[in-house]
Amino acid sequence: MSAVVRIIGIDPGLRNAGWGIVEISGTRLSHVADGRIRSNGEAALSERLLQIHSQLLAILREFAPHEAAIEETFVNKDARATLKLGQARGAAMLAPALLGIPIAEYAPNVVKKSVVGAGHAEKAQIRHMVRVLLPKASPESSDSADALAIAICHAHHRNMRATRS
Amino acid sequence: MSAVVRIIGIDPGLRNAGWGIVEISGTRLSHVADGRIRSNGEAALSERLLQIHSQLLAILREFAPHEAAIEETFVNKDARATLKLGQARGAAMLAPALLGIPIAEYAPNVVKKSVVGAGHAEKAQIRHMVRVLLPKASPESSDSADALAIAICHAHHRNMRATRS
Repeated sequence: MSAVVRIIGIDPGLRNAGWGIVEISGTRLSHVADGRIRSNGEAALSERLLQIHSQLLAILREFAPHEAAIEETFVNKDARATLKLGQARGAAMLAPALLGIPIAEYAPNVVKKSVVGAGHAEKAQIRHMVRVLLPKASPESSDSADALAIAICHAHHRNMRATRS
Repeated sequence: MSAVVRIIGIDPGLRNAGWGIVEISGTRLSHVADGRIRSNGEAALSERLLQIHSQLLAILREFAPHEAAIEETFVNKDARATLKLGQARGAAMLAPALLGIPIAEYAPNVVKKSVVGAGHAEKAQIRHMVRVLLPKASPESSDSADALAIAICHAHHRNMRATRS
């Protein structure tokens, strides 16, 4: 009998950050919880980073995942948007790091490929496949669907590594 | 007699982050300490962010500044470098935010103007003026000289605000 491993996927952002938790037992995948963290757009940047960080820390403490996964997001629009995303990502990643939870990073096309089967996919397609792979999940937002997709991606990749070794 | 206000300036970066602490008493400015935080380039990103965050937290606890200032840095080179800097900046900003220390942000040209008198200045010129304004300081690196410049900038601006109100 294989141990149950709980994984949190994180889709970082300064305004909205998605999170989604799955469990794997052998090759069986199941949904635990998902949601969206928000920061107050009126607040100062440092306060917003603290809001994201604190909410994520509370979720990690509540659900106690063994491993975390995050997307290697890029925003090529402009430097300001990329810097903003980077700050949110740094504040988010620090939460599992502080609790000693290992964090894996996946490129967006790797996440898409492991959920949809192709490196390029629409948001709606990812959301659809997340519901197919996790029938009990009803992601509350596209942010939390993306976060579940990241968690699923990590579940697949860690199983592949386990099979190989 | 005016109260002594202790300010920390932070120059964030993933590999090297500078910090510098000054005190102001009325219009009198004095140097307290400065230094450089490093993260291990061999470690995973989340571990490096944790290293920066934890070291900065220890410095804040040791020197107990009342206020913090950070540069609104932009890297226009490429998205990857900007994302990296953003993450380091987020992890750094979270340290004073967690301790309830207010954080002011200044654009690079504002920092230069308040230290050198012009919005465009060479690194060497900033370092020189930091030594002139803080005769007792001998910044250990250009990162810590930059951090002291950010702290000086905040000292000037908060005094201007105090005079106005």
